[in-house]
Amino acid sequence: MEEKAGKEVKQLLGTTVENKQVIFKGYIEGIPKETDMELKIGKTMNLEKVPKGSNGSLVKNLYLSCDPYMRGRMRDFTGSYLPPFTPGEVIEGFGVSKVLDSDNPDFKPGDIISGFTGWEEYSLIYKTEQLRKIQADDMPLSYHVGLLGFTAYAGFYEVCAPKRGDYVFVSAASGAVGQLVGQLAKLHGCYVVGSAGTKQKVDILKDRLGFDGAFNYKEETDLDKALKRHFPEGIDIYFDNVGGSMLDAALLNMRIHGRIAICGMVSQQSLSNPQGIHNLFMLITKRVKMQGFLQSDYLHLFPQFLEDVTSLYKQGKITYLEDMNEGLESGPSAFVGLFSGQNIGKQVIRVAHH
Amino acid sequence: MEEKAGKEVKQLLGTTVENKQVIFKGYIEGIPKETDMELKIGKTMNLEKVPKGSNGSLVKNLYLSCDPYMRGRMRDFTGSYLPPFTPGEVIEGFGVSKVLDSDNPDFKPGDIISGFTGWEEYSLIYKTEQLRKIQADDMPLSYHVGLLGFTAYAGFYEVCAPKRGDYVFVSAASGAVGQLVGQLAKLHGCYVVGSAGTKQKVDILKDRLGFDGAFNYKEETDLDKALKRHFPEGIDIYFDNVGGSMLDAALLNMRIHGRIAICGMVSQQSLSNPQGIHNLFMLITKRVKMQGFLQSDYLHLFPQFLEDVTSLYKQGKITYLEDMNEGLESGPSAFVGLFSGQNIGKQVIRVAHH
Repeated sequence: MEEKAGKEVKQLLGTTVENKQVIFKGYIEGIPKETDMELKIGKTMNLEKVPKGSNGSLVKNLYLSCDPYMRGRMRDFTGSYLPPFTPGEVIEGFGVSKVLDSDNPDFKPGDIISGFTGWEEYSLIYKTEQLRKIQADDMPLSYHVGLLGFTAYAGFYEVCAPKRGDYVFVSAASGAVGQLVGQLAKLHGCYVVGSAGTKQKVDILKDRLGFDGAFNYKEETDLDKALKRHFPEGIDIYFDNVGGSMLDAALLNMRIHGRIAICGMVSQQSLSNPQGIHNLFMLITKRVKMQGFLQSDYLHLFPQFLEDVTSLYKQGKITYLEDMNEGLESGPSAFVGLFSGQNIGKQVIRVAHH
Repeated sequence: MEEKAGKEVKQLLGTTVENKQVIFKGYIEGIPKETDMELKIGKTMNLEKVPKGSNGSLVKNLYLSCDPYMRGRMRDFTGSYLPPFTPGEVIEGFGVSKVLDSDNPDFKPGDIISGFTGWEEYSLIYKTEQLRKIQADDMPLSYHVGLLGFTAYAGFYEVCAPKRGDYVFVSAASGAVGQLVGQLAKLHGCYVVGSAGTKQKVDILKDRLGFDGAFNYKEETDLDKALKRHFPEGIDIYFDNVGGSMLDAALLNMRIHGRIAICGMVSQQSLSNPQGIHNLFMLITKRVKMQGFLQSDYLHLFPQFLEDVTSLYKQGKITYLEDMNEGLESGPSAFVGLFSGQNIGKQVIRVAHH
């Protein structure tokens, strides 16, 4: 396998290939549309050796991650933790790639790496300090896109401070992050209920992911009542993936000293004037801690996470749902689909099989 | 002094006295009005020895505390941390009182105590487990109303986790809690700016309480800009006493890993449909922790606090502003005044001098 990969790498170097790209057309308002991106076909790239002293890496992209946070880079706002995309340039995102050549000594041709790359078939990456070499671990390569759910792990253990027996509510529970939060909570001895937007997803939560309960938020006329039905004793931990009215309803149902992890706010990403949250006085009444977080603040925990989650996966104690779209061409529709809940599990684009 | 107090106690016991009261008339909406309370004059009370086995204490009330949280007890909502007031009954609040007789062995006649009592001249208290005996400490007795600012101490040290050099913003900064938060922050080596609602208060913050900066929020057309002017580097700690639009503006100015302590939300106490908070996505962007709290969760720290703050006060390192209204009659207007910012410092009612 490694030998074969090495051979392909050698065959590619020095050739000129077509390099399809997905271009960011310009800053947007509202929910992303496919036409906000453009598939550029026909551009070629010379796969030459990386110049000495550049510290760069030339890669072939295999898998790309579709994530709601990317919407935040589609507006002209520089105050966030990642800069806006550049209009007319390739979209940047997390991916799994194969190294063809590298001036950075940490990576050698044939290595499989994860990190920020471009939405294109081949990329020359200069910010190589953010790349991470994937060690062979019998996990499907695509699972390494999105760091195998490290956001879920960091948020659940570090922000939510879970205790056995806690009542845990997860919104967007069949999504990339939610699915793992719920399963980690179950393994931790918590009672877990999730919300999702279709009957199929609700069934998956209960039947495949082992949630104690689940509901379709689109079928509830009163989210507060829905939560009271599922949590008559109240909620200790709310892992919030959506923000908006679900957050407001959850605030009304928190128990004393409850914790709310704020992750993604997918329902609010597209709003230039985000929905108001009205029930923050419950933070006082119930002495609730509400905390936003980014997985990048917890990277010191990544090795432990990798060991834990790989082991759980191999033992069959964790199910990982992946929504795989074939081909870079499918990127724009896959990304847009995140905002109407088209995906079940982690949304990935396969650019190439190897 | 103690002898004199003992003599007065003996003279009172067994007599019948007039017992003026402030009665809660009924549940309200909106901002409290004086007419929501009624001063009841002419009722008498027999100051008899407390029945054996009742565990009660008969007290003469000296000072009563006026606090915004009491607005929360004026609505018919049982889900909060304190039950609603009972229409037609005496208003309950924090006070400093003198024990006339007690069946609880922890208190003896002549003792000065603090804790929940009635807005009346004399009270028979059965929930004596929440009473605390005040040890002679050369501090004015009235300072013990409101636990000498224990809310400020618990919130600042336990919730805000301050570090030397932090940029600290305090709203309602000349109020009972804010004044002490700001001074503790200065003593901790922080840079401190406060907001208040009059020029006089702003001057007091800068000239008497040692704040590095202060502004009158009523004179600012754009709170976000006002904060950017005072905190060009952003805010590490926001001690929020008001909620509403000030909280929304502060969210836009938080630094990475900032902390927001949510205390009181006085601007929102009177709204049955509280104002929406729109900028919570900043919790993610800047990984901010926002936490509501009640001082009652930190009572284990009270002895340390008492020692610290008494010592600071005696050394002249802390100034304590008190707004003293004379007579139980002044209670309703003093309480109502809290909601239009009439008070400077802690609002207290003197019922009796000794």
